[in-house]
Amino acid sequence: MSHVYEAPVASLDDALVQAVEAAGAHRLEGYEAAQPEFTRPVLEAAARFAAQVLSPLNRVGDAQPACRAERGVRSPPGFVDAYRRFCADGWVGLGAPQEFGGQGLPLAIEAAVTEMWAGANFGFATCPELASGALEALHRYGSAQLREGYAARIASGEWTAAMALTEPQAGSDLSLLRCRATPDGAAWRLTGRKLYISWGDHDLTDNIVHFVLARTPDAPPGLNGISLFLVPKRWQDAGGEWVDNDLQALSVEHKMGLRASPTCLMAYGERDGARGWLIGERNAGLACMFTLMNRMRLGVGLHSLGLSERALQLARAHARERIQGRGPDGMPCALIQHADVRRMLLTMKALTHASRGLAYTAAATLDVARLASPAAERARAGQRAELLTPLVKAWCSDVAVEVASLGVQIHGGSGYIDDMEISQVYRDARIGPIFEGTNYIQAQDLLGRKVLRDGGVGLREFVTVIRHAAAELPATDSQGLQALRNGLLEGGERLLAVAGALCAGAQERERIGTSAHHFLNWLGLLAGGWQWALSARRACATSGDAAAQAVLDTADFYATHLLPRMSAHEAAIRDGWSSLHRARPEQI
Amino acid sequence: MSHVYEAPVASLDDALVQAVEAAGAHRLEGYEAAQPEFTRPVLEAAARFAAQVLSPLNRVGDAQPACRAERGVRSPPGFVDAYRRFCADGWVGLGAPQEFGGQGLPLAIEAAVTEMWAGANFGFATCPELASGALEALHRYGSAQLREGYAARIASGEWTAAMALTEPQAGSDLSLLRCRATPDGAAWRLTGRKLYISWGDHDLTDNIVHFVLARTPDAPPGLNGISLFLVPKRWQDAGGEWVDNDLQALSVEHKMGLRASPTCLMAYGERDGARGWLIGERNAGLACMFTLMNRMRLGVGLHSLGLSERALQLARAHARERIQGRGPDGMPCALIQHADVRRMLLTMKALTHASRGLAYTAAATLDVARLASPAAERARAGQRAELLTPLVKAWCSDVAVEVASLGVQIHGGSGYIDDMEISQVYRDARIGPIFEGTNYIQAQDLLGRKVLRDGGVGLREFVTVIRHAAAELPATDSQGLQALRNGLLEGGERLLAVAGALCAGAQERERIGTSAHHFLNWLGLLAGGWQWALSARRACATSGDAAAQAVLDTADFYATHLLPRMSAHEAAIRDGWSSLHRARPEQI
Repeated sequence: MSHVYEAPVASLDDALVQAVEAAGAHRLEGYEAAQPEFTRPVLEAAARFAAQVLSPLNRVGDAQPACRAERGVRSPPGFVDAYRRFCADGWVGLGAPQEFGGQGLPLAIEAAVTEMWAGANFGFATCPELASGALEALHRYGSAQLREGYAARIASGEWTAAMALTEPQAGSDLSLLRCRATPDGAAWRLTGRKLYISWGDHDLTDNIVHFVLARTPDAPPGLNGISLFLVPKRWQDAGGEWVDNDLQALSVEHKMGLRASPTCLMAYGERDGARGWLIGERNAGLACMFTLMNRMRLGVGLHSLGLSERALQLARAHARERIQGRGPDGMPCALIQHADVRRMLLTMKALTHASRGLAYTAAATLDVARLASPAAERARAGQRAELLTPLVKAWCSDVAVEVASLGVQIHGGSGYIDDMEISQVYRDARIGPIFEGTNYIQAQDLLGRKVLRDGGVGLREFVTVIRHAAAELPATDSQGLQALRNGLLEGGERLLAVAGALCAGAQERERIGTSAHHFLNWLGLLAGGWQWALSARRACATSGDAAAQAVLDTADFYATHLLPRMSAHEAAIRDGWSSLHRARPEQI
Repeated sequence: MSHVYEAPVASLDDALVQAVEAAGAHRLEGYEAAQPEFTRPVLEAAARFAAQVLSPLNRVGDAQPACRAERGVRSPPGFVDAYRRFCADGWVGLGAPQEFGGQGLPLAIEAAVTEMWAGANFGFATCPELASGALEALHRYGSAQLREGYAARIASGEWTAAMALTEPQAGSDLSLLRCRATPDGAAWRLTGRKLYISWGDHDLTDNIVHFVLARTPDAPPGLNGISLFLVPKRWQDAGGEWVDNDLQALSVEHKMGLRASPTCLMAYGERDGARGWLIGERNAGLACMFTLMNRMRLGVGLHSLGLSERALQLARAHARERIQGRGPDGMPCALIQHADVRRMLLTMKALTHASRGLAYTAAATLDVARLASPAAERARAGQRAELLTPLVKAWCSDVAVEVASLGVQIHGGSGYIDDMEISQVYRDARIGPIFEGTNYIQAQDLLGRKVLRDGGVGLREFVTVIRHAAAELPATDSQGLQALRNGLLEGGERLLAVAGALCAGAQERERIGTSAHHFLNWLGLLAGGWQWALSARRACATSGDAAAQAVLDTADFYATHLLPRMSAHEAAIRDGWSSLHRARPEQI
């Protein structure tokens, strides 16, 4: 039983309109590209590509993973051709600056398209995503020479990008980094090994542009002594000749999921040093890399969203087709007629829609941060985007794990069988909470840097927007809308109270650690409810229609089945920190 | 980095003492076998076997799964020898009646040992577990001839058992069963195919005794026309000759996890009919099978518990070894020093301990139901065990999925790599909520049959026991114990109120469907808290000791981080049923 991924284009388009408005991007000049009459054909073309080219290769990439071959790493069967078509159709540079040969479309549109790539084929999707991050870093920090040499070729997809941070001893903690760069004229020579490098080597393109963190000889220890280098797989020597650089993939990891994407152990400079060029200032590599990383974090949110949508599609199709048990009339019925199967499907749908709204809003907010004038508005949007980025990365990836698990459950025994795509989605989704900074790192970033550092001002503004949307829900006798309204108003108020108390004791670093997870998930539930409030308001405007009623019912479901989870997070922050604080490592 | 499974024998023993007392089994005559001086050596011997023989084969069974060979199905390398030693040491018949050559030990002890097998090697553990269920069915329903022919050989492990219920069109809904049995003298000939048959074929033993559900020619349709047959792989003909029966494994599934266990598509009677013998009455096969199934459901709970314990061990070891980030003193520190890592570990520990207490208590309650006198006490214990069985199956298996996922998260990127055992535990644990009746089936069984059918009487008795344990917590100024006490007292009261309302409207079948999941999980949290209350009380008696303090801290953690989840379940039952009821399948 094989189901092709079909992007729900109308829903994506709706979500885009809502997100653009929520972010205030609809008022931007030069943002006409995000008008439905323009976006719809783009989304439809992407949906066709996803369904026709990427979706059929998804099981292939899982069953015949990327692997080491005689010369370098080989991608799964069919991927080389699919990638060629992906580039030919201009998808790589969709959001890239026009000076790089890209199409310069708003990030919001790119976000919707990115969701589709992952929904159809997560393993494939991670490759072009690296290009977007790399172009942003080059755009912002690359010298004219590097931009000229590399940007257009990355934007066209002729070359791909790779991001090399992790080392065996340095994962979440980059201060432990050891990779070295020594000067060599205008260039550098790099030596060191990097672990878990996605698409570190492959056969889709001739060249791969690595963005590598390393230390120069005079660098101070710790995080302030890290520089970022561009290290291509092939480089042009003084005579204009293209030569192999001194880098290679020593091995490809065998992973639980995301198998189409080669995760490489890379060795740089094991002969005479890998040629590299500095990006940005020396010792300021972390800031440059964070430009790239922030983009990748939004990417993880969008990819996770794609996996949630995929799980929902598979589970819904199975629940409609599979006859099992009896309905209220005593006759054999489809699974979807059973209340608990509907509960699982509605949980999946409610969380997926909330993730989508949140992730698209983050993307549209980044558009505002780039395009708005005056500068103060850009700065405000930039702060909001900084708040949203860790939230989107962590919440959407946790949601995808839950949604995929429900998808497996609806499939029953068949969900545990490799042939069924849902079992792959379950394995694929599990990487989201781990890579590009674990979700704990995101939670600490959110609470420590994005909330407490400005004394809670940015958070208060965001929650005020949420509470405002709740207050604007039309007065009806619908208990569901009342539950949503009250849940958001009260939940928001209580969250601010807790944040206020944390701000007051912000010097207690331990308190941040014990609260961060619960704080992020609480805010995620609240922000997801915000998205449902916005959708419900739009649906109320078209009442009478069955689809609009379904939106209201699912908003009701979110309010009564999911929003109540907030109180457990509140209780844990309020009452639970002392047991956590007291627990002695040797007694756990 | 390889860590051998090490059963925490002292904790298991403690949990056993607590469970035996909680079930009232310590008052049983002939239950001396469950005294610590007897159980400790049994547990220690089992722990040695688990560590030395089973644990080293766990990754092997995952990497080189059971597969079809030229003749029949081949188990993973090393399994034949391990199984031989398992039998030689007498582990198969540990709890089997002495008349079958078993050792007749209490189920409570068998439960602790079963946990170990799964903790060390889940795939292996599922094989002998089938013997326990089969022996119970034979003991209760088998004719003298069948018992004589098969029971001792199953109890010794010379032959294994298999359970054949599912057909392609009949999974959760057995009324759709089609497999046929036609009379053939004193025996029957069976024809039909069965799906997902664990250990349906293998090379551990020469013979495999299948318990097969089928319909006789005159059987009424639906669930009342199903009979249970014993169908051996090899049978003795009239001349005493052993001949191959007409059954074979057509294929072995490729699964997400549990790969060491061959999951077979079985064909019975594709030549001239598979010889079978009736177990129990004709058309009463479902009742016989449920004896077996109930045992398997407890088994799923125990196996899931073993996986939770395994995940905890792996994550704790990793968190202690891996240096990453800085501690409060600014120096590099182990992961376990980070508050959120401790939060994850304590969540794992708190849930694992609660699962253990609950599962062992169910086992000890079954001992009371078997051994107590007078009959009224047996009956009461039987009812309690019926309430506990679906709870243990569903709650402990959902817990294992959560605990394994946290285990992966603590490992970071390495948790996603096949070589790391935690990634296997994550995949292995996902089958628990599905097989032996999905967790929705368990939830419906719990709420519909075990709670509402007697008007909530049995539930009220159980919750009264829980509330009593909470009320007996010593008065201290510990906020954690107060939180536990209040959480259990209030949570229990509110649960009973909700159950009362559901009883009053019990005719609304749909209401059961919409509430069952939340009801089961609420009761699970409550019953898990009960276990912590019992442990906390015991710890208070030995205060001053660091281990006792750790128990109190973890009880506090459970009360403040996990028990508050109850309120979300309550809200969903109270406010969430109408959106679920209204949701139209075509609009989801």
